[in-house]
Amino acid sequence: METAYQPTPRTTPTRYRERAHYDRKAVHAILDEALICHLGYLGAGGPVVLPTTHARLGDTLYLHGSTGGGPMLAAKAAPSGLPVCVTVTLVDGLVLARAAMHHSVNFRSVVVLGAARVVDDPAEKLRALSCLLDHIRPGRAADCRIPNARELAATGVLCVDLVEVSAKVRTGAPVDDPEDAMLPHWAGVVPLSLKAGTPVPAADLDPAIPVPDYLAP
Amino acid sequence: METAYQPTPRTTPTRYRERAHYDRKAVHAILDEALICHLGYLGAGGPVVLPTTHARLGDTLYLHGSTGGGPMLAAKAAPSGLPVCVTVTLVDGLVLARAAMHHSVNFRSVVVLGAARVVDDPAEKLRALSCLLDHIRPGRAADCRIPNARELAATGVLCVDLVEVSAKVRTGAPVDDPEDAMLPHWAGVVPLSLKAGTPVPAADLDPAIPVPDYLAP
Repeated sequence: METAYQPTPRTTPTRYRERAHYDRKAVHAILDEALICHLGYLGAGGPVVLPTTHARLGDTLYLHGSTGGGPMLAAKAAPSGLPVCVTVTLVDGLVLARAAMHHSVNFRSVVVLGAARVVDDPAEKLRALSCLLDHIRPGRAADCRIPNARELAATGVLCVDLVEVSAKVRTGAPVDDPEDAMLPHWAGVVPLSLKAGTPVPAADLDPAIPVPDYLAP
Repeated sequence: METAYQPTPRTTPTRYRERAHYDRKAVHAILDEALICHLGYLGAGGPVVLPTTHARLGDTLYLHGSTGGGPMLAAKAAPSGLPVCVTVTLVDGLVLARAAMHHSVNFRSVVVLGAARVVDDPAEKLRALSCLLDHIRPGRAADCRIPNARELAATGVLCVDLVEVSAKVRTGAPVDDPEDAMLPHWAGVVPLSLKAGTPVPAADLDPAIPVPDYLAP
C-alpha cells in the first residue's frame, strides 16, 4: 500500500499548492472526522451538490442514499459508474487579518474524484451500513437493530474507490503584509469546532437505558 | 417581493417532500448562518465540488474565489454564466434510532441552482467583499484595511441570483417503528453545534488592541 495518493492534474490545485496534501493517513483522518460530505454529480439540468453521510473502509468510500433519490437514480443509469466529486470540509477557525484581503478560514478538506457505483450485493451493503453507523460514533453498529431484508432493499448505498484524492489544509495565524502590522485592527484566529451537547433521549425511551459510553462527550 | 421561492422540478425532492421549504426568510437564515458553502460546477474532467465562503445581499449570493482558481476560470469562459449548484449545510444533531435503518442527522441545508457570473465592477466587488467580511462576523468589514486596487484585482468574486432555491430541514427525535420501541438500545438525539473558542491574537498583535465585541462568544 502506497503511503500517498498519486497527484493528478485534477487534484493539483492551481493556487496555494503548498496547502495540498496526498498523504494517505492525513486524507483518511479528515474523511473519518467529517460527519457529512457533499456529493456532486451531473444531473439532468446541470451540476447538483447534495449533503449526505459517508464512511470509509480501507480505500473505499461509502455514501448513504435513498433508493429513490437523485444520485441513486443517476448511478443506476450509469452502469460503468457515475462521475462524482465528493468533498468533505472541516472548519477549524476564522482567520482575521488586518487587511481585508488576507482574511481566511482555517480548514481541512478532502476532494474525492471518481465513479460512484451502486452497492447491490446484500453482504457488502450490510457491511457499508455498519460502517456508516460506526462513522457516527464507533460502537453504534453493534448497538441497534440491524436492517431486515425489506429495509436493506429500501436503502441505497453508493461506493467510490479512493484513487484520485487530495486534501487541502490551512492552519495557523493570519499572514499580513509587514506594512500593515501597526494598523489598529485586531488580528488573530477564532477557533471553531463542532461540539456535541448532552444527549436528549427519545420521549418513549425506557429510563433504565443509560446513555452509552460511545456517546459520552 | 414574494415571501417564498417558486419550486421547480429541480428543487422538488423525490423523497421526504415534507422536509423541503421555500420560504424566503427560512432560506436566507440558513444561508446567513452557514460559514462556508460547497460550490459545484462542471470542470473539464467532470463534476467538481469545492468549499468556499459566501455571503448574501438581498437575493444575490456572492462567492469568494481567487482569480486563478478553477471556478473563476470556468466562469470567465462562460460569458452567459457558469451553471452551478451552491449548497450549504448546517449539522444540528445525530439522530440515533433503535433500528439501524432509522438513524439520521438533524440538519438544515439550502441548495441554490443558477448561473454564476464574475463580478467585474469594482464598486460591486468592494460591496461583495464587505459582505463576505461581515458574513464572518457582522462588524468586521468596518474594522480592517479595505483592499487597494491591486488587491481588488487579485480577488475573484462570483455571484448567483437566488431564484431556483430550496431548503431541506430535518429536526427532532428519531422515528422508530412501534414494534421496535421496547428494544434495549438507547435512542435519541445528540445535539451538535459549531462553537467558537477563545480568540487567539496574532503573535505580533499590539497587546493594547482588545478583542472586538463582535468576536465575543
